[in-house]
Amino acid sequence: MPKIPTLTDIIEAAERIKPYAHRTPVLQSSWFNEQTGAELFFKCENFQKVGAFKFRGACNAIMKLPKRDGEKGIVTHSSGNHAQAVALAAKLNGYKATIVMPKNAPKVKVEAVKGYGAKIVFCESTIDAREETAQTIIQETGATFIHPYNHPDVIAGQGTSAKELLEEIPDLDVIIAPVGGGGLMSGTLIAAKAINPNIKVYGAEPELADDAWRSLKSGKIEPVLRTDTIADGLRTSLGSLTFEIIQSHINDIVTVPEASIIRDMRNIWERMKIIIEPSCAVPVAAIMDGKVPVEGLKVGVIITGGNVDLDNLPW
Amino acid sequence: MPKIPTLTDIIEAAERIKPYAHRTPVLQSSWFNEQTGAELFFKCENFQKVGAFKFRGACNAIMKLPKRDGEKGIVTHSSGNHAQAVALAAKLNGYKATIVMPKNAPKVKVEAVKGYGAKIVFCESTIDAREETAQTIIQETGATFIHPYNHPDVIAGQGTSAKELLEEIPDLDVIIAPVGGGGLMSGTLIAAKAINPNIKVYGAEPELADDAWRSLKSGKIEPVLRTDTIADGLRTSLGSLTFEIIQSHINDIVTVPEASIIRDMRNIWERMKIIIEPSCAVPVAAIMDGKVPVEGLKVGVIITGGNVDLDNLPW
Repeated sequence: MPKIPTLTDIIEAAERIKPYAHRTPVLQSSWFNEQTGAELFFKCENFQKVGAFKFRGACNAIMKLPKRDGEKGIVTHSSGNHAQAVALAAKLNGYKATIVMPKNAPKVKVEAVKGYGAKIVFCESTIDAREETAQTIIQETGATFIHPYNHPDVIAGQGTSAKELLEEIPDLDVIIAPVGGGGLMSGTLIAAKAINPNIKVYGAEPELADDAWRSLKSGKIEPVLRTDTIADGLRTSLGSLTFEIIQSHINDIVTVPEASIIRDMRNIWERMKIIIEPSCAVPVAAIMDGKVPVEGLKVGVIITGGNVDLDNLPW
Repeated sequence: MPKIPTLTDIIEAAERIKPYAHRTPVLQSSWFNEQTGAELFFKCENFQKVGAFKFRGACNAIMKLPKRDGEKGIVTHSSGNHAQAVALAAKLNGYKATIVMPKNAPKVKVEAVKGYGAKIVFCESTIDAREETAQTIIQETGATFIHPYNHPDVIAGQGTSAKELLEEIPDLDVIIAPVGGGGLMSGTLIAAKAINPNIKVYGAEPELADDAWRSLKSGKIEPVLRTDTIADGLRTSLGSLTFEIIQSHINDIVTVPEASIIRDMRNIWERMKIIIEPSCAVPVAAIMDGKVPVEGLKVGVIITGGNVDLDNLPW
């Protein structure tokens, strides 16, 4: 079992990734404040390198590798933001990245990863095929596998976003973020609770991918049962490490229906003029639907990314 | 002939609108820098109140009115961003606004203006009908007409955007902005050339609405000949005041085809994760198409607004 990172690890991660990662802006919206009766602070990771918070974790994990390991290469399997994050972080460190992607991955995502100079190895679209293919590459080359969330250095990297947010707005009462594999939520919990033990941290999930909510209730990692939520970044079950951190620290996990996710994705686009991917709208919808108590409070919302296929919008 | 505003008027406008208008962010994009060989600085008026720079001018003009005039009401005719800008600026000053809109104005724009508390009077969709209707209201109520661009206080307000941009990036070599009625371009020229006489300022227009380019060549105000460019904010001819300012100060006006406008609107959305309306993409397309010399230079681009109908995207 890998070691659970601490605030010190997050502070070190922040220093480590500083030359490469953006310090993303914190935006406000008078319309959302009026609608909710709260003061909302949106931490905009859609403006992060590769368009998502994932760059923080991948960059920290790859920069922390001993040079002799990095030079043997980096491997991961992902068809989402983590793939681009690993590709770019490896490139910036002068390492070779190999990304295992399912044969049916959207062309736009394949091109994005190629654009960052990574090698792509295609496989069947099952999780077993992905893991086997990655394993084969590791055995052949000695490359290092960077897990998208169940990895202490990745978690510490993701926690740097909440750390920055609390530096800017130190008196937040609440932070809310989406829960997919739990890497962002774990890093957020460690940073936020160490900086301010009284802060409340909530997770938000689509009703159609409520595995973290069920895991919290049952006390063990529950699988995602369906993969048809529009929030494509959240179709993932928790890992052993992220489950342990979330179980120990989180105040609550709430779920929202698809219609609310689409509604508030559009509200953010129209009212704030920023492009967010559907996963980001999940915590916003939780607030707008009254699923978490926010009235009169200062609330941080982590906007996780902005990678959307503009030819396939949900309206 | 109204008086041409000076940098002093723009500085006063900036102080006047400060309590209400956002100081909008200046964003950069490594992708656009790589593509162009320039260092581009995007001044993001899409994050301005009402989602467009128009709020600056309307707010300045309305705040500058003597109270006894303002209390008789404000009138304008517009179906675009100026309508929302006048509605909000009037509301913030406690004045009544009446907006004359064509009967066929898109429902989303009508609702937006209503949302800011203005009264809407519908008329036929000709420019004559609009002006007559506004004139009738003025005669009946003593309300003040706020022209969308051919008005010194509106021009001074629009100039505050370039002033802010140059405060942040004082060593810009070039500023480029779109030209519609010329209010933004006039304010930009006055601010930029007074702050730095060596700066080059270019205007960009759609090929399908190249009236300012033709006006510059012929030496008199030429009408817009067609209204089918996607850049809906730029389907307007120059006014007497804006033509005089532009003719005296501008370095050049360049035109771009519709395909380039759509391409770079999408590039901005995808690469920068911000929502811009088609008019904003016109100067970006001018740079990307090599219509203005930018290589090795520091270039400010005024991103004018972000009000887009998300149900009618051009891709």
